[in-house]
Formats: sequence, C-alpha cells, structure tokens
Amino acid sequence: VYHEPWGAWAFPIGPIGSDGLKVRLRAQRGDLQRVAVWYGPRYEPARRDYPYPLPLQRSAPLDRVASSRLFDYFEGTLHEPTRRVRYAFLLDDGRRRRWYGPDGAAEARRQAGAFEVAHLDATERHDVPDWARGAVFYQIFPERFCNGDAKNDPAGTLPWSEPIDLRRDHERFYGGDLRGVIQKAPHLASLGVEAVWLTPIFLSPSSHKYDTEDYRQIDPSFGDDDTFSELLDVLHRNDIRVVIDGVFNHSGERFAPFRDVLQHGERSRYRHWFHIRDFPVRQEAPQNFETYAFYGHQPRLNTRDSEVREYLLDVARHWTLRGVDGWRLDVANEVGHDFWRAFRQTVREANPNAFLVGEVWQQADPWLRGDQFDAVMNYPFMGTAIGFFAADRFGPESFDARLTDRRMHHPDPVNDVLLNPLGSHDTPRFATRCEGEAEHRRGRAALAAVFQLTYPGAPLIYYGDEIGLGLTGEATRLPMRWESGNQDLPLLELYRRLIALRRPPSVLRTGGYRTLLQEELTGTYAFARTPGAQIDRETADGGLPVLVVLHRSPQEHLISVPVAPLALPDGLLLTDALTDSTYPVRAGQVTVNCGPWQAAVLIVRPQSPARSAVLAGTDG
Amino acid sequence: VYHEPWGAWAFPIGPIGSDGLKVRLRAQRGDLQRVAVWYGPRYEPARRDYPYPLPLQRSAPLDRVASSRLFDYFEGTLHEPTRRVRYAFLLDDGRRRRWYGPDGAAEARRQAGAFEVAHLDATERHDVPDWARGAVFYQIFPERFCNGDAKNDPAGTLPWSEPIDLRRDHERFYGGDLRGVIQKAPHLASLGVEAVWLTPIFLSPSSHKYDTEDYRQIDPSFGDDDTFSELLDVLHRNDIRVVIDGVFNHSGERFAPFRDVLQHGERSRYRHWFHIRDFPVRQEAPQNFETYAFYGHQPRLNTRDSEVREYLLDVARHWTLRGVDGWRLDVANEVGHDFWRAFRQTVREANPNAFLVGEVWQQADPWLRGDQFDAVMNYPFMGTAIGFFAADRFGPESFDARLTDRRMHHPDPVNDVLLNPLGSHDTPRFATRCEGEAEHRRGRAALAAVFQLTYPGAPLIYYGDEIGLGLTGEATRLPMRWESGNQDLPLLELYRRLIALRRPPSVLRTGGYRTLLQEELTGTYAFARTPGAQIDRETADGGLPVLVVLHRSPQEHLISVPVAPLALPDGLLLTDALTDSTYPVRAGQVTVNCGPWQAAVLIVRPQSPARSAVLAGTDG
Repeated sequence: VYHEPWGAWAFPIGPIGSDGLKVRLRAQRGDLQRVAVWYGPRYEPARRDYPYPLPLQRSAPLDRVASSRLFDYFEGTLHEPTRRVRYAFLLDDGRRRRWYGPDGAAEARRQAGAFEVAHLDATERHDVPDWARGAVFYQIFPERFCNGDAKNDPAGTLPWSEPIDLRRDHERFYGGDLRGVIQKAPHLASLGVEAVWLTPIFLSPSSHKYDTEDYRQIDPSFGDDDTFSELLDVLHRNDIRVVIDGVFNHSGERFAPFRDVLQHGERSRYRHWFHIRDFPVRQEAPQNFETYAFYGHQPRLNTRDSEVREYLLDVARHWTLRGVDGWRLDVANEVGHDFWRAFRQTVREANPNAFLVGEVWQQADPWLRGDQFDAVMNYPFMGTAIGFFAADRFGPESFDARLTDRRMHHPDPVNDVLLNPLGSHDTPRFATRCEGEAEHRRGRAALAAVFQLTYPGAPLIYYGDEIGLGLTGEATRLPMRWESGNQDLPLLELYRRLIALRRPPSVLRTGGYRTLLQEELTGTYAFARTPGAQIDRETADGGLPVLVVLHRSPQEHLISVPVAPLALPDGLLLTDALTDSTYPVRAGQVTVNCGPWQAAVLIVRPQSPARSAVLAGTDG
Repeated sequence: VYHEPWGAWAFPIGPIGSDGLKVRLRAQRGDLQRVAVWYGPRYEPARRDYPYPLPLQRSAPLDRVASSRLFDYFEGTLHEPTRRVRYAFLLDDGRRRRWYGPDGAAEARRQAGAFEVAHLDATERHDVPDWARGAVFYQIFPERFCNGDAKNDPAGTLPWSEPIDLRRDHERFYGGDLRGVIQKAPHLASLGVEAVWLTPIFLSPSSHKYDTEDYRQIDPSFGDDDTFSELLDVLHRNDIRVVIDGVFNHSGERFAPFRDVLQHGERSRYRHWFHIRDFPVRQEAPQNFETYAFYGHQPRLNTRDSEVREYLLDVARHWTLRGVDGWRLDVANEVGHDFWRAFRQTVREANPNAFLVGEVWQQADPWLRGDQFDAVMNYPFMGTAIGFFAADRFGPESFDARLTDRRMHHPDPVNDVLLNPLGSHDTPRFATRCEGEAEHRRGRAALAAVFQLTYPGAPLIYYGDEIGLGLTGEATRLPMRWESGNQDLPLLELYRRLIALRRPPSVLRTGGYRTLLQEELTGTYAFARTPGAQIDRETADGGLPVLVVLHRSPQEHLISVPVAPLALPDGLLLTDALTDSTYPVRAGQVTVNCGPWQAAVLIVRPQSPARSAVLAGTDG
C-alpha cells in the first residue's frame, strides 16, 4: 500500500479557498476490496494542547479507478471545511479491516498515524488554463506548412514538391511562411483544432529556426510584425489559440551578444551571457564553451545570470503581451528550475491564461509541480502508442498498464493538459513507423488517431498526419500536401469527426477513464471516458460516457465489451460516432463485430430513449 | 526495485559545475548481491540524429548502505564530464544479471531504457550552508533562560523558582531576557554548541511571543536593539551563530494592521492583509476570519498579497542584514510555497550563508527540494527516539528500520542539516517521557543524548536538557536552573564530551552511517559513522570511523559488535570517548561489557599504533 500527502497522491481541487482534496492510493493488485478515507480538521476549537491526535470523524469512499500489472489504484475526494486536513485510510481486504497512515498499516488508528495536508491553500495548486484542458492542439513547422507569400522566399527556395535531403535539411528552404498559416486558417477551423503550436518564428539562419539570431524579430522569410499580428487576429477569430516556441536554453551563433563575444573575446561585456571556459572561443569541436548538444553554432545561454534572465524574461513578456496564448519551451530540462519559476510568473502576469509546456522527453515530475509548467510534451505517451499500434511490440494488457502507471503518476490537472503527440518535427512521423502492408499501415495509423483523440489530455496533431502524410514513408519535415487528390480524405474525415466529439461539453475533455476490455488474443482494447460524478473530478464534464473500442488486428472478430461498470441499462442503444451504426446494450455487454483495424467510438445519442435513465444512473 | 532520477534518488553533489551525481536504489531486502550504475553522456559529438539511444560506456559500483524491514538501499556516485547524464542499473542477484531503467527490469539494456538527468547544473541543488552541516544547535526560550536585567522585568514578574501554571503560562512572566543570554554565553561556549535558536524576541504581549505586535522591535522586556546587537557580537565572538524565529503565518492581535482592521472594519486599508470573511471582525469563537488554529488573537496573514509579502520580506531582509545567521520559520507548512521561495531568495541575497529551517512536523518533502528550506525540525526523529529510548515501544530492529527509511528519504545535504530534536517548547521534555525508576529515566535520557549527538544531522538541544531538567517531571518551559547544586553535572559532562567529538574534522558531522548490530534480546543497537571515501560523499569528513554502542537495558550484557564492514585491523585498540576505557578489535569484533543503560562511543585515538593501517584501509 502506498500513499504520500502530496503530488499525484493528494492534491487540492478547485480554486484557492476550496475545501476539496483528492486522494489516491496504490495497493497490490487484488489485495483490497474496499477503501475509505477518514478525515477531520488538524485543530479543534476547544483544544489548546498542541499537537494532539484528533479523532477522524468523517469519511468518503474511494473507487478503484485503474489497475496495472502489479497495482490497483483507488481515488476519492474529501471535503474538509477548515482546509487543514488530517486523514487516514481504512483498508478492507474482505477478511479484515486495517488502518493505513504515515506510520504504516495497523489494527489501531493511532498506531497508523494520520497524514496531514497542513492547509489546502498553502499546497501547490496546478492552475492550468481551463481552455487547454483536453483541447486539441496542432503543430505547425512554418517553413513546411504553406508558402503564402512568394515575395519573402529566401534565395534558392526549392520547389514545394522537392524531396527532403535529411543531411542538409536545416539549410534547405521551401518557402513556408506565416501568410501561409493565415491562408490555411480555414483548414484548421474545419478540422476543428483549438490551438496551434508554431515551431520557432524568430530571425534565424536555419530552416528549423532553433538557432535564434534575434528574439524580437519575426524571421523575414516568414513575414513581419504585421503578418504575425494578422495571424493572431485571424486564428483568434476562428477560436484557435496560438502557442509559440521559446528557445531559451541556447541562442544561435548570430545572436548579437554571442557575435560580440566572438569579436571581442575576453573583453566582451557579454562574456558572462554564455558558459565559456577560455578564450578565444572555438566553435569547432571540441568547443571550449557550452553548447546545445555538441553544436558550436548553438551556444548555451547562462540563464543564472541576472542580465540574461531579465533579457529573456523581457522577450517572454513582450510576445505574451502581443497576444500569444502560450509557450512551448525548447530543451526545457537543461535550464534551471528557478528560471522557469520566474518565467511562469512573468508570463502569467502578462496573461493569466497563458499555457506553458516544456520539452521534457522523459519522466518530468520536477517540472510539473505547479510552479513551472502546466504540461510537458508527453513523449512516453507516443512511445506507448508506437509500441501498441504501430509495431505490435506488446499487447492490450501491457498497453493498459503503461497508460495506467503514467496517468496515476500525475494529478488530474496535469493529466488534463499533457500534450499527447504521436510524432513531431523531432521524430519520424507516426505513420512511417507503422508496420505491414499499405492497408495495415493505414489501419494502424487510423487506430492510433482514434486513441489519441479520445484519451485524456490535450492531443497534439503533427501537421499532415490528418491527411495521411507519412503513410508512404514521407520524411517528417516534408512540405504539407494541399491538393485534395494527394490527401487521404477518409482519414481527414475521421480526424474531423473525432475532434468534433471533443467539443464541450464532452467527457472526452476532462472526464474520467475506465478500462473495459484487454483481450490479448484478438488484440482488442476498450475503455470508457466517464462523467465527472463517478470519480468526483472538480472539472470533469457532465453528460454521458463514451466507449472506445480499438481492434488492433488484421482479422475480423466479434467483440463483447463489458459495460457493467458504467451502469448502462439493458436495451440502451449506443451509436458509433465514426460510422453511425448502432449497438444495443444486452446483459451488461455491447457486442461489436470488428473488422480489421476497426475502431468504434460508442456514444449515447441525445435522442436515445434510455438517455434519461443513463443520466440518472451515472450522475447519481 | 525502485529509483527515480530526482530527489533523494539522484542528486548532484558539489557546487554548480561539478560532474558528480549520487544515485540511490531500493531493492527488496536480500534480493540483490551486487549493483552497478552504467552511464554515459546524453549526446555524442559525432551524432546528429536526435534522439538516439547511446551506449552506456562507464560504470560505478553501488554499495549496500542500509536495510530496513522490507528493503535494501544501495548508493553510488557517477561522474559524467558532460554533466548531461544517461544511466541504467545492472542488478546481480547471484544467479543472473538484469538491467533496470525507467521501462523496468529486462535482460536487454535497450528494453530497460535509461534514466536521464538532463543537465546537472539545471537540477535542483541543495546549497545548505556548510557551517550548519552536522552543527550542534541549542534552543533558547528567552523568557525562561536567564534573567540578566531585572530593570526590564514586566509588571508582576514571578520568582524564578515559581512552578509553572500550564493553563496560564502564556501570560505569566519570569523575567528572562537577552541580557541573560549574553551573560550565559560562557555556559554555551563551554558546552560547545555552534548555534542557538531563539524563539521569538519581537514585541508581543505573551510569554512565548508567537503573537507578534511589531516585527521590527525587540520586546522591551527582553531588551532593545542595542542589547540584541551585543548578543550577536558576544555569541559570534564565541563562534556561536544566531538563528531567530520568524512568525509569518500569523501576527498577533496587536499588530498595527490588524488593529486598524478592528477599528475601521471594511474601510481599513489593511483588510486584504488578512483573510476576513465578513465584518465586523469577531475575535471570539467561531471567528469570521482565518486564525492560527482557532486562536482569535493570532490572525492568519495573507501572504499571497503583494503588499503583505513585501512587508514580511522587508522584515526578513532587515534582521538578516542586522547579522542573524538564519531563520526558524513558525507554522511553515500553512504558508504557501511561493512565499517561502521568495523568502529564501531575499534572505540569501542578504546573507548567502543564512540557514533556513521550517517548522513542519510531518513528512516534509515539498519544502525540502532545495528551493525553500535547508531543513525542517525533524520531529519524526524525536518520535523514533522516544519510542526506543524513553518507552521501549519497539526494539533495535524497528528503531533501525525507522531511521533508515527516514534517512533514505532525503538527499545527503538535507540529512546533514535536519534539525534533530528530542523535545522543544511545544512538547514535553524528553526526560519527562522516560519511563521507570529515577536511575532508569536518567539512563534512558543519557542514552538518547548519546544517540542524538552521534547521529547524522544537526542535533538540537532544548535548553536545560543538558543539566537534567525534566528528569523529575519539570514542565517544558520551566526556568533554567543555574545553581550547580541543582544541575546533573555528570550529564552535563557527558554532553560536553559528545559535543566536543563533533568538532571538525569529525566523521560525526557529515560522515556516512552503517548499522552494525541490532540485538532484540539485549536491547542493543550499534552503528558506525564512516569516513567519506567509503560512501563517496562530496562533503564527508575524512579521518577515522566512530562506533557507537547503545545498550537500552537495565541489565548487564557482554556485547560483541561486528566491525568487519569497517575493515578495522585485528589488534586495533578502540577508546571509549565517554569513559576512556579501551577495547581491542579481535576477529572482526569489539566486545564491550555493557552495564545498565550504558553507551560507548568508540574512537581510534590519534596515538593508536594501528591508526595508519586503518587510514589506509578506509581512505582507499
């Protein structure tokens, strides 16, 4: 049994002043039948002797919300009006009941002790922007999205259809620009995405622009300040937010302070802006200064220096005040935590709804405690999706266990906004990783899209995935294909339908998650997104559950999905939102005849006669 | 098997720019025979494809440093010159070898994955002040320590020998003051303590002064600004640092802003300084504003308000610049983390060596990540000491397990400075908790003192414990007894000897810890403090190990302590620093004839002929 009174295990819900604390408990799989949390205030008015062990007089049940290979996870919420909380768990394994507290498990409550959350308002709270919870993001690599203005094309711009040369890609240009993004706003709007993340747009010599020359100037081959204002206007008018890319770990070699150092060496007044071991600066390997990776043209910035800090925070303030809705922060894990805390404070002062997401590829706890980022790019999600959908590296049970352990690792507000990618400009496209014949690859990619767009968190679509880019091995940064004859239109329609399902109010945004089926033999995995009431999530959407069936198999199978945990009444008709086929609930099951690589997203249509019965059953 | 790439499990050692990372691994007890960490850089100069799984080419062994009931703990240190670290563990259970990484345990290294510490310099570092590591602290409750100036006694001051009236103690005065502390500097110096913590000294109507009226004025019954300056001078001249008490969770009812609120109600410009639900303010229960506990005369401050924040940070800056060496922060767990981060920054700017310790009674991880406090008052330590030494609630094995789990819960720099109390002004005195006849109570108290003063961390002596206050049931805040006829002089001599042993260089300050013996039948527990080389602690003191034998029994036993783990040569003569008796090492053991409640602190005297052999053995 495991619990800690902080982090993902105990977190306040709602705004400052709320009295709710959600608690999570992990137990050995199958060990516990029932768990309750008993709680009370940390002080009592009548008692003046401190500290004193107070009785725990109120209780709330915990639900088993997930299981992985070794563990069951239980969740519940307590509401302590004084906001100064003591609590312990009462464990019931079917034979006997024991208390569990910071001093371990014991027959006697006193012996187990009581966990404390000293004051709910003093506890770190994840104030993630509401708009980002469960929102659909779309990543644009501007140089390769759309060339909207040929006049700003750099010298030697290649034809849009020219194949990628991976080794020289950073110095090859196709002419994509901000005008192109503006022109394609209708595509984004009709797709239904709620936010775009633009990889860097500031002056830089490369095609990727992760080597900034000037943090305050839009790269002229992308447009100018006015173009950017127009882009913000147009996208905002389409209810699409704009997140830009902040590259603060390092600059480019043309960044004026670094040029000054190259020119004046030790006498440069900017020498402390970088980490330089000795002079003169040597850009070729082995460099005598710190770089991003081992790239001599990307000198690492000294973000501990107060001048550098002020400079970069000014940049952040400037663009935030200009109207951007958030920042994606490059190589965030190589920059100090105190810089990110100051960064959050600066950006949130300029825009209290700004969204902050860090590039951290691995376990990211130290950045996700509420004081730095709202989210990270959830690459472990990508790895899990690749292993299951693209490559059959593991079956449904292992897939579910990986998802569970990751989800239980973060508090709800973080899970709500983790940016879930299937790929990015830094990885192969998901479709190119899919194994097998063409039809199988396409089936796998479509299944993964259904999963990405129904799973908790903020799906991050990499430009082009929605029209099948990558299915025939296209390079990651290949220019977008705009001629409809070159687009996989059924796939695009699938994306549109799925994204439309996430429109509020939808349990797909912040609803709960219950695994329904993990069938190794048929490669089938099914889960439900559930309304708030069932798991007592402060922000969960109301409404009706959504069932997702994913059939990762080239064969056909008749799949019976147990829906008992959802209390759906017999006879209720579920509709597959992808095909409009209907399926009745019979004896606590829904049976779907799954073709190869088929997915079903089963919803209760508003006109369903049994709808009110379901609402009564699930909202109680 | 458990490991995380942060916190107590992986922490950088040494100052910014160092390449050392200490890693800790937990395994099921008895499962693993050998563990090594394999590591390498996160990037390689020749590779441009990112991300890529690099081979791990270097390795370092891990030592088993501790065990608790369920777990073995292993520690080791790696040194990666690029400071961008990837690593995985190679586990050997005597039959087969497996890799362990973020993706679990596996035969193949690739399958286990590799942990990452993205950049050692970007990782939170615990920059605790060197002077505080392992230093002996002494807590003074000024109103009850010494009355050095009768002229400032409050009206109705009681005779020094008057018994305590617990129910009215907050409004009863004995006349203790800062002049008294100055006068008793020789006692502190001869005792050997390195720092004192003064409970609050600012203007306040109560005897405990945790209800501040003016944060910038020394309470006149304690002295004035000049007296405080003199106190700082005198103690500093005696190499004794001064830590003062910051009460920032709440003020007292006489605090001018609160008086203004009481007077002007809703129209007060200070109404946002507190948490007031409605007007007029009601001080009697139930209050309509937030308080400390349920005390209407201690209104909780709104530390999220920027004006309040600036005011309190100014107070902190003011006294830090006046020369105090640190702050003990009252009710720290009910104040927001962001306030403490700003507090740390403010105080450290004023004095880079200031020590910050929070009052957090329970598990304190969220405050001990390097960004807020250096330490907390380690009340769990007190609870463990009470359970074993005062009350026989558990035996040596459980005692050791509790110590181990707590020690393995924090990174070394935190363990080095955790303030380890046996009691405080908020608890009964340790001696009054000791059970049994007078001689047994004294034996228990003395054993606990030996333990407190030889265990890792910063021992915190509560005034009077050193002369036996509490042994005959004295109240916690009873005035100190200064007449030597009323002091337990042998106990005082014991304290002096033990404190002297901690003088640098001594392994007792920051050396390692190895359990040597846990004998349930005789109630005996023995451990060694070990030189740095054995556990690769950056800051560990060199020199020779110290062995501590604690015999918690009213009987006499012949105890054989195995010393094989320390590589002490046969024939080496160890000296008990408490009695000057000598004991030879024979066949990997030291045998001590332990009388009732006896402790032995065995050291290698500098003149010992085998000393150089030991040094060669342990420093290698």
